[in-house]
Amino acid sequence: MNRVYNTEILSVGTEILLGHVVNSDAKAISEMLSAIGINVKYHTVVGDNPERLRECVEIAKNRADIIVTTGGLGPTYDDLTKALLAESFGLKLVRDEKEYALMQAYGNERHRAVPNVFTQSMLPEGSTVFHNTCGTAPGCAFEKDGIIVIMLPGPPKECSTMFRLSAIPYLKKLSDEQIVSHAIRIFGKGEFEVDGIFREEMDKMTNPTMAPYTRECDCLLQVTAKAKSEEEAERMLEPVIAHVKDVLGDVVFGVDVDEIECCVLELLKEKNKTFTLAESCTGGEVAKRFTDLPGASEVFPGGFVVYSDFAKAQLLGIDAELIREKTAVSREVAEQMAIRCRKIMKTDIGIGITGLAGPDGDGVNEVGTVFISMDTEDGTFVKEIRIPRRGVGGRQFIRRMSGSIAFDLIRRHLCRMEIR
Amino acid sequence: MNRVYNTEILSVGTEILLGHVVNSDAKAISEMLSAIGINVKYHTVVGDNPERLRECVEIAKNRADIIVTTGGLGPTYDDLTKALLAESFGLKLVRDEKEYALMQAYGNERHRAVPNVFTQSMLPEGSTVFHNTCGTAPGCAFEKDGIIVIMLPGPPKECSTMFRLSAIPYLKKLSDEQIVSHAIRIFGKGEFEVDGIFREEMDKMTNPTMAPYTRECDCLLQVTAKAKSEEEAERMLEPVIAHVKDVLGDVVFGVDVDEIECCVLELLKEKNKTFTLAESCTGGEVAKRFTDLPGASEVFPGGFVVYSDFAKAQLLGIDAELIREKTAVSREVAEQMAIRCRKIMKTDIGIGITGLAGPDGDGVNEVGTVFISMDTEDGTFVKEIRIPRRGVGGRQFIRRMSGSIAFDLIRRHLCRMEIR
Repeated sequence: MNRVYNTEILSVGTEILLGHVVNSDAKAISEMLSAIGINVKYHTVVGDNPERLRECVEIAKNRADIIVTTGGLGPTYDDLTKALLAESFGLKLVRDEKEYALMQAYGNERHRAVPNVFTQSMLPEGSTVFHNTCGTAPGCAFEKDGIIVIMLPGPPKECSTMFRLSAIPYLKKLSDEQIVSHAIRIFGKGEFEVDGIFREEMDKMTNPTMAPYTRECDCLLQVTAKAKSEEEAERMLEPVIAHVKDVLGDVVFGVDVDEIECCVLELLKEKNKTFTLAESCTGGEVAKRFTDLPGASEVFPGGFVVYSDFAKAQLLGIDAELIREKTAVSREVAEQMAIRCRKIMKTDIGIGITGLAGPDGDGVNEVGTVFISMDTEDGTFVKEIRIPRRGVGGRQFIRRMSGSIAFDLIRRHLCRMEIR
Repeated sequence: MNRVYNTEILSVGTEILLGHVVNSDAKAISEMLSAIGINVKYHTVVGDNPERLRECVEIAKNRADIIVTTGGLGPTYDDLTKALLAESFGLKLVRDEKEYALMQAYGNERHRAVPNVFTQSMLPEGSTVFHNTCGTAPGCAFEKDGIIVIMLPGPPKECSTMFRLSAIPYLKKLSDEQIVSHAIRIFGKGEFEVDGIFREEMDKMTNPTMAPYTRECDCLLQVTAKAKSEEEAERMLEPVIAHVKDVLGDVVFGVDVDEIECCVLELLKEKNKTFTLAESCTGGEVAKRFTDLPGASEVFPGGFVVYSDFAKAQLLGIDAELIREKTAVSREVAEQMAIRCRKIMKTDIGIGITGLAGPDGDGVNEVGTVFISMDTEDGTFVKEIRIPRRGVGGRQFIRRMSGSIAFDLIRRHLCRMEIR
């Protein structure tokens, strides 16, 4: 964009202030704005109190060029946000006949009236109306006094869907300069290491630019270019992405992919391969992560949660004597888990995960010790990791990281990369 | 507390503004403050930019009595938050010798120096120091110009642990009036229904008070009392809690419990019972939720993720003909899943979950149709649910709700309540 837009996301929601929910709307919007090069400078959360909301709107008007509000629309809120924003910008609320008719029709279809159809269909005069594809309350956008205001409903699915489908195209149209951004996703090198590798180059770059960010179990390099058209910006980014992939090699698992398991799902489908899992310390989490993805059933028939020694013997047929001798957290048991789950499920790949996620130990291994095994037609590989308990550690992190490593092993196998 | 404290949580974190992470610190702190009756009126997020942070501090000073900052401490931030807050309140930073020595010792133990030990151990003069039990950067609290300032590190585990262990006791000591709050957790009636039942009573209450809140799959009634001592406040709440339990009956699953699975874990341990699972559409999520809880291994030996028809036949021995005839999403298959997983794992309770989480259907059943079965010594029970796709629906919600219903069935069985 020609101007630098400073954005404030103003969320109206007592449930956020009470700590009942996280502010996931602000996260989703921030992520989408970053991707088109618009800076988010502030998040504010305020309750559904007219006086405090009015003050927050005044503060936002003084420091932001784009104000995105979430929540405070719809049947339960008496449309507090719309009324206040309209008032603050000296705009009247007028009924949007199209939205009004749609809500009526929606109610008729279900044989019950949509509550507050009247107030829900009132929008600031001259707004661009955003239809709600997941709920009833419409959103809208207007520009007044040099400030762009975007109003969205609060429920996370309604908010993020409307932002993606309506607000992003609205914002893109405002500018004759286009910003394109891609996230190069990295597993196996941390943010500091990546920063060290590219620091000198990054300091010299102006357009495109490059910046590393850390995620829970991996990291990313965000590359961004400004140009007269999206196509031109894309052309500018191509050599940068190629260069990063070249320098970093096989730790790059994708560009703009969501999580490493998404990349694994695509690879499995592409190569027509299947996998299964035997999970001990992760207790179903890895299967859950994978089946969170629509389409997982094509390549993942199912798996085993073998939390106890009994389950390892009973479900997988692992020799109880071996478990007693080596303990359940051992290279040998991990190996058997991968081999046997693959055999029973007749898949191309078998994964075994056994370790100590804590808080209690087993008297032999340190908490944070995990063995991750993979069995394929090429043989069996076992990886041993030790995740420190202090700082970033803890039960949830150990479980999550173990899953990410398992997905990375599958990725490496399918791409014929070094297994390590 | 005698005064009404208005709190603002000011989070310093560019990663939140970029949408890489949610502001989980603000959620955790808000939840803990609500529980001791302190109102959170604002959340603000700002990047690690001195000028904007300074402006946000000035705004917070004008509208809050308690300012809680998160982030911007520790080695990577150059201690921006501490320096700015100290300056804003006219306080010098002085070295805390105890924290300095502890960090040195911590570094020596690990044979590598803690970065920025000097700046990390500098704190505003006269502060109460909060030791960091999960990381290195200490936090602190001070009172100046009638405002209480609490500074916490940003990493979620460090932040919430320090708040619970140090900030809450610090805040409680400030007052000679004590506020006690409990959350009565409800599964099987929604917020609106609960509100309808108690609305008249709630409108008349002043101390104690009662308010309903909705959660993802359940709801809660928060009861709060103010008194000269905690004991007295507790005594005031006892009859209120008893009354609510009496009116609502068996939909109350606990008071101050985290999630319904925590209550199930306690019941299983208490009654010395075990359970297992065969999950189809939930794909490991229910096992994951349960094994998120430390101590789950005592009562849960493991389970089956039977995502495909092949897995249902291969792992559980369900007749392939039955699956073909009735489809995998049927009462009959659900029944077999519960019976067979219980038999194989030799547990007291067996749970089966099969359904269509979407987005795609199977041509027979509607997306959102789920069968949840339970097999025990009393026989087999199958519950059929239909979760609408629109609005709150969607794949994740269908999966989560199915798990909560499964846990509720176990709870009802163990408590000898009506199974429905």
